[in-house]
Amino acid sequence: MTKLWGGRFAGQTDALVHEFNASLSFDRRLYAEDITGSMAWARGLVGAGVLTAVEADAIVAGLAQVRQEFESETFAFAPGDEDIHTAVERRLTEIVGDVGGKLHTGRSRNDQVATGFRLWLMAAIDHLQAHLADLQNALITSAETHLNLPMPGYTHLQHAQPITWGHWVLAHFWPLVRDRERLAQVRARTAVLPLGSAALAGTAYPVDRAWLAQALGFTAVSQNSLDAVSDRDFAADFLYGAAMIGLHLSRLSEQLILFSSSEFGFVRLDDAYSTGSSLMPQKKNPDTLELTRGKAGRLVGYLTGLLTTLKGLPSTYDKDLQEDKEPVFAAFDTLCLTVPVMAGLVASLALNPERMAAQLEPGLLATDLADYLVRRGLPFRQAHHVVGEVVQLAESKAASLTDLTLSDLQAVSGMFGEDVLAVFDVPAALASRQVTGGTAPDALRAQLMAAKTAVSSVSIVKP
Amino acid sequence: MTKLWGGRFAGQTDALVHEFNASLSFDRRLYAEDITGSMAWARGLVGAGVLTAVEADAIVAGLAQVRQEFESETFAFAPGDEDIHTAVERRLTEIVGDVGGKLHTGRSRNDQVATGFRLWLMAAIDHLQAHLADLQNALITSAETHLNLPMPGYTHLQHAQPITWGHWVLAHFWPLVRDRERLAQVRARTAVLPLGSAALAGTAYPVDRAWLAQALGFTAVSQNSLDAVSDRDFAADFLYGAAMIGLHLSRLSEQLILFSSSEFGFVRLDDAYSTGSSLMPQKKNPDTLELTRGKAGRLVGYLTGLLTTLKGLPSTYDKDLQEDKEPVFAAFDTLCLTVPVMAGLVASLALNPERMAAQLEPGLLATDLADYLVRRGLPFRQAHHVVGEVVQLAESKAASLTDLTLSDLQAVSGMFGEDVLAVFDVPAALASRQVTGGTAPDALRAQLMAAKTAVSSVSIVKP
Amino acid sequence: MTKLWGGRFAGQTDALVHEFNASLSFDRRLYAEDITGSMAWARGLVGAGVLTAVEADAIVAGLAQVRQEFESETFAFAPGDEDIHTAVERRLTEIVGDVGGKLHTGRSRNDQVATGFRLWLMAAIDHLQAHLADLQNALITSAETHLNLPMPGYTHLQHAQPITWGHWVLAHFWPLVRDRERLAQVRARTAVLPLGSAALAGTAYPVDRAWLAQALGFTAVSQNSLDAVSDRDFAADFLYGAAMIGLHLSRLSEQLILFSSSEFGFVRLDDAYSTGSSLMPQKKNPDTLELTRGKAGRLVGYLTGLLTTLKGLPSTYDKDLQEDKEPVFAAFDTLCLTVPVMAGLVASLALNPERMAAQLEPGLLATDLADYLVRRGLPFRQAHHVVGEVVQLAESKAASLTDLTLSDLQAVSGMFGEDVLAVFDVPAALASRQVTGGTAPDALRAQLMAAKTAVSSVSIVKP
Amino acid sequence: MTKLWGGRFAGQTDALVHEFNASLSFDRRLYAEDITGSMAWARGLVGAGVLTAVEADAIVAGLAQVRQEFESETFAFAPGDEDIHTAVERRLTEIVGDVGGKLHTGRSRNDQVATGFRLWLMAAIDHLQAHLADLQNALITSAETHLNLPMPGYTHLQHAQPITWGHWVLAHFWPLVRDRERLAQVRARTAVLPLGSAALAGTAYPVDRAWLAQALGFTAVSQNSLDAVSDRDFAADFLYGAAMIGLHLSRLSEQLILFSSSEFGFVRLDDAYSTGSSLMPQKKNPDTLELTRGKAGRLVGYLTGLLTTLKGLPSTYDKDLQEDKEPVFAAFDTLCLTVPVMAGLVASLALNPERMAAQLEPGLLATDLADYLVRRGLPFRQAHHVVGEVVQLAESKAASLTDLTLSDLQAVSGMFGEDVLAVFDVPAALASRQVTGGTAPDALRAQLMAAKTAVSSVSIVKP
Repeated sequence: MTKLWGGRFAGQTDALVHEFNASLSFDRRLYAEDITGSMAWARGLVGAGVLTAVEADAIVAGLAQVRQEFESETFAFAPGDEDIHTAVERRLTEIVGDVGGKLHTGRSRNDQVATGFRLWLMAAIDHLQAHLADLQNALITSAETHLNLPMPGYTHLQHAQPITWGHWVLAHFWPLVRDRERLAQVRARTAVLPLGSAALAGTAYPVDRAWLAQALGFTAVSQNSLDAVSDRDFAADFLYGAAMIGLHLSRLSEQLILFSSSEFGFVRLDDAYSTGSSLMPQKKNPDTLELTRGKAGRLVGYLTGLLTTLKGLPSTYDKDLQEDKEPVFAAFDTLCLTVPVMAGLVASLALNPERMAAQLEPGLLATDLADYLVRRGLPFRQAHHVVGEVVQLAESKAASLTDLTLSDLQAVSGMFGEDVLAVFDVPAALASRQVTGGTAPDALRAQLMAAKTAVSSVSIVKP
Repeated sequence: MTKLWGGRFAGQTDALVHEFNASLSFDRRLYAEDITGSMAWARGLVGAGVLTAVEADAIVAGLAQVRQEFESETFAFAPGDEDIHTAVERRLTEIVGDVGGKLHTGRSRNDQVATGFRLWLMAAIDHLQAHLADLQNALITSAETHLNLPMPGYTHLQHAQPITWGHWVLAHFWPLVRDRERLAQVRARTAVLPLGSAALAGTAYPVDRAWLAQALGFTAVSQNSLDAVSDRDFAADFLYGAAMIGLHLSRLSEQLILFSSSEFGFVRLDDAYSTGSSLMPQKKNPDTLELTRGKAGRLVGYLTGLLTTLKGLPSTYDKDLQEDKEPVFAAFDTLCLTVPVMAGLVASLALNPERMAAQLEPGLLATDLADYLVRRGLPFRQAHHVVGEVVQLAESKAASLTDLTLSDLQAVSGMFGEDVLAVFDVPAALASRQVTGGTAPDALRAQLMAAKTAVSSVSIVKP
Repeated sequence: MTKLWGGRFAGQTDALVHEFNASLSFDRRLYAEDITGSMAWARGLVGAGVLTAVEADAIVAGLAQVRQEFESETFAFAPGDEDIHTAVERRLTEIVGDVGGKLHTGRSRNDQVATGFRLWLMAAIDHLQAHLADLQNALITSAETHLNLPMPGYTHLQHAQPITWGHWVLAHFWPLVRDRERLAQVRARTAVLPLGSAALAGTAYPVDRAWLAQALGFTAVSQNSLDAVSDRDFAADFLYGAAMIGLHLSRLSEQLILFSSSEFGFVRLDDAYSTGSSLMPQKKNPDTLELTRGKAGRLVGYLTGLLTTLKGLPSTYDKDLQEDKEPVFAAFDTLCLTVPVMAGLVASLALNPERMAAQLEPGLLATDLADYLVRRGLPFRQAHHVVGEVVQLAESKAASLTDLTLSDLQAVSGMFGEDVLAVFDVPAALASRQVTGGTAPDALRAQLMAAKTAVSSVSIVKP
Repeated sequence: MTKLWGGRFAGQTDALVHEFNASLSFDRRLYAEDITGSMAWARGLVGAGVLTAVEADAIVAGLAQVRQEFESETFAFAPGDEDIHTAVERRLTEIVGDVGGKLHTGRSRNDQVATGFRLWLMAAIDHLQAHLADLQNALITSAETHLNLPMPGYTHLQHAQPITWGHWVLAHFWPLVRDRERLAQVRARTAVLPLGSAALAGTAYPVDRAWLAQALGFTAVSQNSLDAVSDRDFAADFLYGAAMIGLHLSRLSEQLILFSSSEFGFVRLDDAYSTGSSLMPQKKNPDTLELTRGKAGRLVGYLTGLLTTLKGLPSTYDKDLQEDKEPVFAAFDTLCLTVPVMAGLVASLALNPERMAAQLEPGLLATDLADYLVRRGLPFRQAHHVVGEVVQLAESKAASLTDLTLSDLQAVSGMFGEDVLAVFDVPAALASRQVTGGTAPDALRAQLMAAKTAVSSVSIVKP
């Protein structure tokens, strides 16, 4: 196997070592970005006086042919191709001859790889943003359809206060707004051009880096060549952003798994999103949701792995950095399956309002009962205590709050009046929470509008 | 022990359980933010018609006294104080009487805690930004002082090309720019007011949330009350930002540890930043740098821990979320020691230009030798190969590149001419890398200027 | 501040650096182990001819006094005490005079710290084993009390097959057996004496290391002094073991949180293990279980943190290793609260057999229905398919399986006979699973016996 | 696509969901273990009276043919094959007809998958043990070849005391002993048979589980069927063991990277284990070592990912558990490349004794100088201080310790005598550390012997 860097080496690379070092198995997916970067570099070398326009044309045409071979799946890798970059240059030189050997003038794989990887990630983020917007829209549609459908709200998985389906489902919309903002910020940090940094000290040729950046869709050029070849913040930032998406989806999944259990029965997954059991014929399992929840672990693992790799690296570029790509690719692939699957699942979810209604027991209005006492002048802390005693009384009678008589209530506190029963009215309770973000119909309508605005407001820079 | 929520409970909390549940040992540091939030809430309740201005004045005055007791360290905790919020309310009520029991009207600890914690983090980030700016300035000063001092540059910890101290030290400046940008973005996501969300469904009182936000220094109000009480993205975001700072400092530390070894000898730590050995009298150990490197692990662990805790949580608010504070406090405390220590260490670092110069062997200019051949018309790829053979020839003679004679060189390639020796000139090699980010004097001057601008450009929103 | 290693230093340690380097705030809890180790070392130095027996007696008596001062909380730290080891030696020398300065002959803090920390962990593991045994016993008691109480079994949180409470609760017993086995193995790897390794190369004095090991309760001596001072496997092993315990308890907690929800209602936590809400008077929250579930994150974080710290350390002993103690202490403290709290919670749990029975719907016996067809000669795969169609038929009629008539069943398959209704018998279904580990009464009795044996079978080496 | 569990489902699985749920892409590598498990299960069903011997023979023969198709790479997957288990059963039924449908009687994929995965891991661990033994032997050979070759020993990456190459290289042997012990313990916990647990409640057929265990090479049967289908401790245990191997190799790599730098120059990697630069012709990079160091991050990430996935799972079997296999496979594959590469690298390493000797400066013997004073009666603590002053004196004169005159020394302390110069003798210093684990020739010989014994002493249970 001939290596592009082999001049000074007398011995051969061990076969196992070749496999160990090679990144081709995963970085081949960077072929398009590598070629795009090389085309720009060839043009840049004309500006720097290194290539003639004719030479650059030949190289660009050759690279276009290489790209064509990849796209038509006719590209043939050679045994010595240790990464996509050497594979492309090797093939280019086969096509265009010796002038191909001029392409690598003034650059290094260090800046070349970083450029291609950043380009790839910029496009990947744009792709993911679209998937996330689809999921957001599915949530919005579900919320809009059942905006005021009452259901119990939970804290600590205990009945807390009445809310609505629209309120609940939008609670899973806003985390995605933060996720998309985060991704947009990662993209901006990614769109900084390292090309021109060469191996570490900057290229010795007067290439116009600002022009390169503009031609390739970067919004800035790196300010320090040593940093430019060693910076993998963008990869870690993306993995963190991916882990957060994973966590948000794990929480949505967990709740839907609960809601689709026999005991809750609030929702029913479409058959298309369920699977059965090899043994138990009656089973309809929410595998899709469980896998989504489980894959949060994988995404956290990718992040932790790269952070551990980066810790304590000694020089500007160390080969350890080659470990950056696989987790980023894997996190992207994971989300490109998970997010659309969740969007489809949400869109096809069937609700069971009766089961929700059946859980709207009077205890959910205990806070409103305390508020009733507050309106009658009792400080809240005392009202809370009084209602606590009422709850205990009801429990001791194995009764619900509405089963208690007025005299039962008055035995606890003389402040209860005839009008107390009016408290146990779920629609009224919902309607009373009118602040921004609250569960009242007007507040929910406003929130829905805000959500629709937010879907389109994360500005996505297209390359 | 009397609990604020005890009304409905017949049994007592187990003593061990009380210790297990209690967060007072760590959340007491939120006392000021809790009080500030409560003062605003009291005013907000006046607007909502819940409190009279006189009642609110009494509460605010009482809270001011509580704060005073904390600041003068005379505040006495009671056995039943399970967290800082109950402690403050308990003491308030002792001071102002029954009206204190009105303060909690329409809010819950769920939104109260989230508000106080966000307020704390906003201030903490501002504090950290200042420490980071100090470290950035120390790096800038070091760079400016030795901007063009030549030293070997490394990739793979092998001699690569000549660079300068200014170039090297600024390579550790730019990661901090990204860190500070990240923190500024975290701060913006933190400055979203949850207060008014109550337990989960929104407060039932018409409190003006926009006014509350403005009064407390938040820049937005949360849009969904369920999300508002369960969102801990800001805590995770901060821990991620902290981990990245830790990683950047671990890489700087690693390099300085190497540079201060006997074998490198490029730098010498000031005695104030070194420690000795209990056994070996001659030792001068870079403990400070090692601890900084090691603490990157701790910071990664805090992040991983919170992400694992957040995974799969089932309801809007679960008590698991109480696990958010300790890692955030610990990460902040870690960085508040580490960053200033590193700033002082960098500022007091003594350089040894002779040791650096001694390592500037001709091999570092092999790329320039290839560029020489490129200028004479050889495609770079061939030039690289030719120089590789020259390097191998020198190795076989146990000689350096400059020990080879012209005829040695010409035996490898006829393209070497009389002028080839001019290549082996470190200042010329440095000067040839003139692109943005490169190692040439002009480029470094421009970079230094850019760095100075960047220190002050991260816009920090003061509360 | 006088440092024990200060002879060669002209400058002073920066105050912030002193705080940064100091480990006293956390390693003071090693005082007893440090003193025990030093007493043995003093005796060892007699054997090596370094100390006279009189000198050793004086040192041991002095150390006993130091220990007494710690135990009576009268020990006074001095400003220069950077760690517990220097504090003890400083105080010893104050008490016994110059002879105290002979104690550190031939040892280093590197082997001294590792010895004390290992001693501490050996005792900590023994302590934790006892807590785990208590929790195991609580589970056994609960299982024994309700061994054959029927309840629905779940996979994918969907109704699967009938099981019993005894079966379910013992499913959380066996993971603790693995946890305790793991801890016992960690203890064995911890009980390897590093003392005598000095700083890195081995002590230059002929101390009898085998005697030291035996005197201190170690079961082996380290075989390589460089490894001995850099090995922190035992700390990582412990943190892994702790994380696994945390995960096991998180799964138990999750299930009990579900079971104590309104929708399930299978169990009711004792008031002693529940808490209320500051806003909602009716709430009874399983905070204890939520915190237990949440703390699994913290334990995973401690592990990840130390692993990241250990990655890529360059020399035998680096100061980064000082980061080993805090996570180990914190993990131990976390478990010393969590495990007993869970034991108490399990012991005081009230069950609700009616709610369990209410969920034992016929669908749980669909597998038994397929087995009925298998007994009549249908291959299982076809039987599974037939029953699947039966289930679908029932769903289409909004009926349960037992609501279907024989002719309904026979319309799906002619193999159904008159005796098919006998299938829908929960006790029979339970009794049919007689294999080891199964849910039949005999199998459960055997399992209970095996569990009782397993509690006492993890051999714990006492020091 | 026909699903094995499809009977009750009216709708079709979404195509994306099929891809999302499918595990075939990674679990196909379990084909052999799945088939082996099924063969045993078929025999077990004969014992249980479910199959006739003739039926079982047909199934076993059919399974043998399926295995043959896999081994000859002629097995054709069908679109509906969602995992290896359904693929095998589908093909079996094609081959043997309806009797194939009887194989799944009384078992579930839950126990089937766990059995196959455990079988695979048992073999994988045996395989890895052999690789680790090879690396251990390479280290032993290197140690034996240069057992007493002097080199500087480091703590904090500063010169500490003289050691030898044999001593240093064996310091990387013993961690592998712990790694192998850990793996052996993981294997023992893996070798517990889950088969017979069915979906969760135990099989309803009287299969002889003890016979199954013995036939398949397991050493025990699971004691609780619910635990058996949900237990993934063995996977986590393996990932932890793999991460520790990764960390140990990262530390070895880091040190060899340093030692192969120009500044140290102690070792030279064989060309077969080095790579070059695409830009800089002179470079010879230790990529192999850097990748090994970097892959420690990946291994930590696999562990963290699975732990996060496992946290808080609600029922006995949840589909989240499908996330167990990919990290285990990936960790195994990573180590199966890394460990042999490291063995080859160590075996082919060239040492440079001259460069090591050049670093053996007198400061390394400062501890011996203190010991000299101890022998003359000075307490060690004072001796340490005196030598510290001597070191400072030498530094102030920019001299080495041996450049100081006797009167220089006596100016610091009158206890220095004529014989002091004898201290500065590296061989004598080495020889004085005779304790177990020390650097003296006899101690090293004994250690080497112990190491040879340890290689073969980790008892590996062959299946």
